[in-house]
Amino acid sequence: MAEPATATEAAAPAVALLKDELDIVIPTIRNLDFLEMWRPFFQPYHLIIVQDGDPSKTIKVPDGFDYELYNRNDINRILGPKASCISFKDSACRCFGYMVSKKKYIFTIDDDCFVAKDPSGKAINALEQHIKNLLSPSTPFFFNTLYDPYREGADFVRGYPFSLREGVSTAVSHGLWLNIPDYDAPTQLVKPLERNTRYVDAVMTIPKGTLFPMCGMNLAFDRQLIGPAMYFGLMGDGQPIGRYDDMWAGWCIKVICDHLGLGVKTGLPYIYHSKASNPFVNLKKEYKGIYWQEEIIPFFQQAVLPKDCTTVQKCYIELAKQVKEKLSKVDPYFDKLADAMVTWIEAWDELNPTGAAVPNGKAK
Amino acid sequence: MAEPATATEAAAPAVALLKDELDIVIPTIRNLDFLEMWRPFFQPYHLIIVQDGDPSKTIKVPDGFDYELYNRNDINRILGPKASCISFKDSACRCFGYMVSKKKYIFTIDDDCFVAKDPSGKAINALEQHIKNLLSPSTPFFFNTLYDPYREGADFVRGYPFSLREGVSTAVSHGLWLNIPDYDAPTQLVKPLERNTRYVDAVMTIPKGTLFPMCGMNLAFDRQLIGPAMYFGLMGDGQPIGRYDDMWAGWCIKVICDHLGLGVKTGLPYIYHSKASNPFVNLKKEYKGIYWQEEIIPFFQQAVLPKDCTTVQKCYIELAKQVKEKLSKVDPYFDKLADAMVTWIEAWDELNPTGAAVPNGKAK
Repeated sequence: MAEPATATEAAAPAVALLKDELDIVIPTIRNLDFLEMWRPFFQPYHLIIVQDGDPSKTIKVPDGFDYELYNRNDINRILGPKASCISFKDSACRCFGYMVSKKKYIFTIDDDCFVAKDPSGKAINALEQHIKNLLSPSTPFFFNTLYDPYREGADFVRGYPFSLREGVSTAVSHGLWLNIPDYDAPTQLVKPLERNTRYVDAVMTIPKGTLFPMCGMNLAFDRQLIGPAMYFGLMGDGQPIGRYDDMWAGWCIKVICDHLGLGVKTGLPYIYHSKASNPFVNLKKEYKGIYWQEEIIPFFQQAVLPKDCTTVQKCYIELAKQVKEKLSKVDPYFDKLADAMVTWIEAWDELNPTGAAVPNGKAK
Repeated sequence: MAEPATATEAAAPAVALLKDELDIVIPTIRNLDFLEMWRPFFQPYHLIIVQDGDPSKTIKVPDGFDYELYNRNDINRILGPKASCISFKDSACRCFGYMVSKKKYIFTIDDDCFVAKDPSGKAINALEQHIKNLLSPSTPFFFNTLYDPYREGADFVRGYPFSLREGVSTAVSHGLWLNIPDYDAPTQLVKPLERNTRYVDAVMTIPKGTLFPMCGMNLAFDRQLIGPAMYFGLMGDGQPIGRYDDMWAGWCIKVICDHLGLGVKTGLPYIYHSKASNPFVNLKKEYKGIYWQEEIIPFFQQAVLPKDCTTVQKCYIELAKQVKEKLSKVDPYFDKLADAMVTWIEAWDELNPTGAAVPNGKAK
């Protein structure tokens, strides 16, 4: 559990579920050697690589993978002035990959994430588990004490209302990490040696009305259901914060999923997170976020979307409006971020012309 | 995992935490041979045995246990006319034990529950885990993706607001069951052979605003914080339903804990549930509950307690009032139940005179 799987262990034959309906999005600044270990699981899929930093650098991708790669020049060329909404020198740039994908599902993973092993020693096909999570319903309206009721060997327990057992469509599957846990800089500094070795064999729906810290390291979602809300914000170069890209997206998608009656799951699958990032660098990126979040989270907890917000796009534009109204007083950054949220939706709709008019769920 | 521990495996020396502050409440109709297996874990504690059914029957308790036993005659004698609020011929009678206890904590367990083993084969001291759950805070306002942040080897993840990391007091610890899962009669009938073999190594707080199906089989709580709301309702003899006693208590305590800013946890510890009850008998007991719960649950989801409800008693009396107002139209049973809820509080305050005036939490 505390060791990654070897390439041999990971080489079990895998059935490539949703092969033609899913893209794997990887943000990176380096050669993608980490793909070697994922080969048995990822090779059947199409990769979208978003190269961050210096566009003149060449990123090497191991042979045999089917991929498209975008660097900053490509992003600027494709989006024109709207490229301003895509972060630079920050893994937040990954959301450009969500936008250019033409598939129904996205799986995104960091390039320092390796194949983990379950307690029996078997290599975990993280992608397969994410797909299972996305293809089975969620249960956001009532808590099931035996966790995922749709899993083999489990069900709804006594006292679970029958009218809620059909569940709702799952929009997001949030996976976890063995080895290096996803801690903030202060916790990293205080507990530099802490490693996550506990394999919790569960997938659960995050209840309606509850926010969570969504990590972008090992994440899958249904682009058709929630894609336009998976914006990772303005981070990195020229921005006052970093490392809040996935958090921002997590708060936004959760409020919108709750409004539209869609589900968000967390738990399995685990990946093996190999390398702790530098806590001093992280602290510099995070420190404003650490106090801003004390105001941002109550904002999202109280955010109410009007009934006529029946598509993700409408929800997102409304949320941008509320961010501008209520968070700009925290810092002028949020004014800029609210504008970028609108730009993001404009760019999304430009690249995804038909998707704009499809209602993505049922407004509650 | 799918086998109970043997008496030898369970005989590991145990530290008896809170020995003088916790009572173990057991409702039963038979000799308590099951205690033999629990001896290493339970013997240091005081037991309160609530004998259901024929009071002339003698219940044998294995030697060496310190206990008091109440049968129906005792209940009638102690409570007088107020004994009407205590169910007969139903394990709901256990709540009488909560009322007569003078301790701060209660652990209640069914007599068909044995010691389970963790995946390493070690006998699980369920009581010890419940105590750990109760003595560490809960986090109802924001979801921590690595589960219990206070557990060794875990913490709050990146993006978890620092202002919420202190948590709130834990009022209830809901444990789970290996082997026979706690299914309703229809699910039992459809899946007679399903067994729970999945050991999920997690404890989590049920978020604020989320209801759950609380099972009374393996449950602990802080009597001082939430005791007066742990009423198991009117079930069994002379009542139109059964098997909803713990569910009713679970909905009530959750609404009140949410209002008072107290925490409810679920997950570890597991017990080994040995015997499936008869699904045909269960169906007869449950069938009204199965359709009533479709109206009861929305009622509890929408229940709002006024700010001046600052004690559990006040909250509970208010809830009884709302039950009478809003659920009596579902069935006259709820009118009777609402009255019994009031009687319960009167009886509680009579037996616990000083507790009545102590504010149990912080009204939100």
